[in-house]
Amino acid sequence: MTAQKAYKDLKNRMKEIAILSSTGSVLHWDREAYLPRKADDHRAEQLAQIRRLMHEWFTDAQVGEWLAAVEGSSLMADREAEAAVNVREWRRMYNEETKLPSEFVQEFTRVTTKATGIWAEARRKADFGLFGPTLETIVDLCRRRADYVGYTTEKYDALLNHFEPGARSADVEKAFAGLRTDLVELVGKIKDAPRKPDIGILKRPWDVARQRLFSESIAAAIGYDFDSGRFDLVTHPCCNDLGPHDTRILTRYYPGDFAEGLTSAVHEAGHALYEMSRTDKTHWGTPMHETASLGIHESQSRTWENIVGRSRQFWVYFFPQLQRVFHQETAGVTLDDFYGAMNWVSPSYIRVEADEATYCLHVMLRFELERAIIAGDLEAADIPGEWNRRFKEYLGIEVDNDANGCLQDIHWAHGAFGYFPTYALGNLYAAQFWQKAQKDLPGLTADFEQGKFDRLLGWLKDNIHSRGASYFAAELCERVTGAPLSHKPLLDYLYDKYTEIYGITRGK
Amino acid sequence: MTAQKAYKDLKNRMKEIAILSSTGSVLHWDREAYLPRKADDHRAEQLAQIRRLMHEWFTDAQVGEWLAAVEGSSLMADREAEAAVNVREWRRMYNEETKLPSEFVQEFTRVTTKATGIWAEARRKADFGLFGPTLETIVDLCRRRADYVGYTTEKYDALLNHFEPGARSADVEKAFAGLRTDLVELVGKIKDAPRKPDIGILKRPWDVARQRLFSESIAAAIGYDFDSGRFDLVTHPCCNDLGPHDTRILTRYYPGDFAEGLTSAVHEAGHALYEMSRTDKTHWGTPMHETASLGIHESQSRTWENIVGRSRQFWVYFFPQLQRVFHQETAGVTLDDFYGAMNWVSPSYIRVEADEATYCLHVMLRFELERAIIAGDLEAADIPGEWNRRFKEYLGIEVDNDANGCLQDIHWAHGAFGYFPTYALGNLYAAQFWQKAQKDLPGLTADFEQGKFDRLLGWLKDNIHSRGASYFAAELCERVTGAPLSHKPLLDYLYDKYTEIYGITRGK
Repeated sequence: MTAQKAYKDLKNRMKEIAILSSTGSVLHWDREAYLPRKADDHRAEQLAQIRRLMHEWFTDAQVGEWLAAVEGSSLMADREAEAAVNVREWRRMYNEETKLPSEFVQEFTRVTTKATGIWAEARRKADFGLFGPTLETIVDLCRRRADYVGYTTEKYDALLNHFEPGARSADVEKAFAGLRTDLVELVGKIKDAPRKPDIGILKRPWDVARQRLFSESIAAAIGYDFDSGRFDLVTHPCCNDLGPHDTRILTRYYPGDFAEGLTSAVHEAGHALYEMSRTDKTHWGTPMHETASLGIHESQSRTWENIVGRSRQFWVYFFPQLQRVFHQETAGVTLDDFYGAMNWVSPSYIRVEADEATYCLHVMLRFELERAIIAGDLEAADIPGEWNRRFKEYLGIEVDNDANGCLQDIHWAHGAFGYFPTYALGNLYAAQFWQKAQKDLPGLTADFEQGKFDRLLGWLKDNIHSRGASYFAAELCERVTGAPLSHKPLLDYLYDKYTEIYGITRGK
Repeated sequence: MTAQKAYKDLKNRMKEIAILSSTGSVLHWDREAYLPRKADDHRAEQLAQIRRLMHEWFTDAQVGEWLAAVEGSSLMADREAEAAVNVREWRRMYNEETKLPSEFVQEFTRVTTKATGIWAEARRKADFGLFGPTLETIVDLCRRRADYVGYTTEKYDALLNHFEPGARSADVEKAFAGLRTDLVELVGKIKDAPRKPDIGILKRPWDVARQRLFSESIAAAIGYDFDSGRFDLVTHPCCNDLGPHDTRILTRYYPGDFAEGLTSAVHEAGHALYEMSRTDKTHWGTPMHETASLGIHESQSRTWENIVGRSRQFWVYFFPQLQRVFHQETAGVTLDDFYGAMNWVSPSYIRVEADEATYCLHVMLRFELERAIIAGDLEAADIPGEWNRRFKEYLGIEVDNDANGCLQDIHWAHGAFGYFPTYALGNLYAAQFWQKAQKDLPGLTADFEQGKFDRLLGWLKDNIHSRGASYFAAELCERVTGAPLSHKPLLDYLYDKYTEIYGITRGK
């Protein structure tokens, strides 16, 4: 078998898997958006069949032979060439998938499927005790998973790498340490700020039908292609990539919370732009066409949601349109009032409702706990106490019950230890990319005042989107910005904004 | 291999195929309802992959061995027992599918895929000449298909049987001959009737949002379960069965045509009830749980659309509700006015817009031409002339152009010769079932005046729905009604209704 032939066979196999996977994505999207209540069991059967076929096709011994044949060849010489990028990623995934015994995978699925219901009840009753024993089992499974997959320094790396390939917990800790100290200081200053915006504006009864139209028109303005996607309404916002030219958004709008509906829509549109901007589908179905990591994906959504969508320049352009669409809701409101309200900062219990300044504190807290649990330094039973202690320390408020504390997120019930850090990494990458984009594109923010976003989108496309999964996130960051990941750009960005709005000053 | 073991393996295989098929149905539904424009090519790839897998799994030599092992066993002794029903149907489908060479199937797909675009352009330009050569190729393919599959009497039977298993063209011809004569006479009497309803009522600008709510509430009233399905809006109404507890309807409403929106919705709900009423899913994925034929399926939709949904008793109950929902649209309209308008009869060009009396004439015309074409008695080039001649003879109007004539339907472009007769068979079966249901259930129509439809639905469930594909349609009809299919019940039903509305009399 020549390396060329092996690579061709490998690509064909992976293309078949990618097509089937995209079919699974349609089933998944439909389950979130439109599935009739009673059809839930059958949908689970359909998805299980697809997962089983994908697993069989992917872990087939022949795939291992093809990989080995290419790996020993000159096709790998140029590490940025198509074959090298693809085979490197396929090997990583192949190793991870073949190292897990199928009985283990079945047990993991069984436990986490059941756990979701138990967690939901525990949260409803705000009683961690009901979920504790299940969580202990899940933690044990996650540790075993790390052992199967393997790691060099610490178990948690193996879990983190499932979501953020190549990332090391120690590096993440380094980036987070300075960030936590600086954010706690920033939030303290804002708490005692000499002036504050009026958040009440956004709590007026904003017409929901108009919110929907307005949000979709903003998504279109920043580049979302409605011929390659669509918006539908559900409770939990998300972005689903269903295949080439099919990236759909699920979101929702509330009459009493204008910011929540709009920023969720723009956030998801940011994820979608990462998928949509690779319009050349030649490499579709291979890592050359994939996204780099969850952290990099989150950097794109946060760029559009926060850095663009909460900027003064953005609203210089859109505020007059907002006034025309929402006559009643914006009565007596100035651009300054509105811009201030959109940048309201106040510590609160729930991560998904957190503002831009406190958000990372929620995530870092979870990262610290997860790491300690997986290392065996923290017992499941001690989580609520430890959560509440750190929450008070970082965010300055006492957690009143577990539903507002350690039970708020579903991730642990899914067994997704290692997922959380990617949320904060996304914010850090976003700010660091943004700093570089501004240097490369003079007058960039002035574009926004004209409703122009194509220079920014073009830059993101050239520097990030078009590179697929050629590099791990950390390397991509260095290549794009010339520096390793740091928390400084995020702090610079936040102080720039909040100094003006809240009248605070940086430094002691 | 024991017959028991072979049957078990066969069932497992067919269950897997059915699950995958239901996934294909989700992809298909989504394509009709929500697929972004640019994603069309990829959706075709996804569907092709599923079709290929299904074909491989189904035509596998092992399936032939399993079938043979069961066929020679005592499991087949009782022809109404589960194994006998299932294996009989699987054998029929296995033979049909394995007899077609894969190159032929590919050519058929390639030609008909291309033909759809050519037909659409020909219809737009109302020029049969543009479609003629393609249609000749398709006819040739259909003849070859019949030769591959095999037949006893005439080629057309092989095509008809794909949609209506076990049906013979000669029998269909017999049922149709009397029907055509009698319907031509009826339509003539209505043309010269002493009184006619005012169709204008239905052409008022009926509020579309209210039409949607009203139609869905009627679907719920006749038994459609919204926990096992949903309604969405598209241009071409249809009912899609996506799996157990997931039967969805696509439909649309026009401001200037109240009857079109409502009757389409009720028609599709009728199809859905056939799927939904088999709530015991034990046999799901096997012929025991399938529907009997397209003709029987159509009988269910026509029962609810016409026999129930256009009956006086139905509107005795729903007309007051209609008045409450549509204050403006029903101003000055009485129950008699409305009931008459809903039963308006007038020959027109387009089959899908045809009324209850002329509908079958459109279908029979198509059946006659199809049969002659496949037999080689009619050339493609002669279709428009022959179409127009018969149209004038049966419906009394001159066809003004091919778009209003032989180019109006997409079926031939799809290569679906043999499909058409099932539309008219559905009307005949519906009327014959209805006559029997009325005998079995005294006072049945009085139920409707109370908004009660459960006795009728229960009867259809017991006599038709629950029997799956245990019998071919003709045998099912005899078992249910005690008589072979006849056109008399339909004529009785139509004269009952039109005598009252139009003041006509039966006989010379």
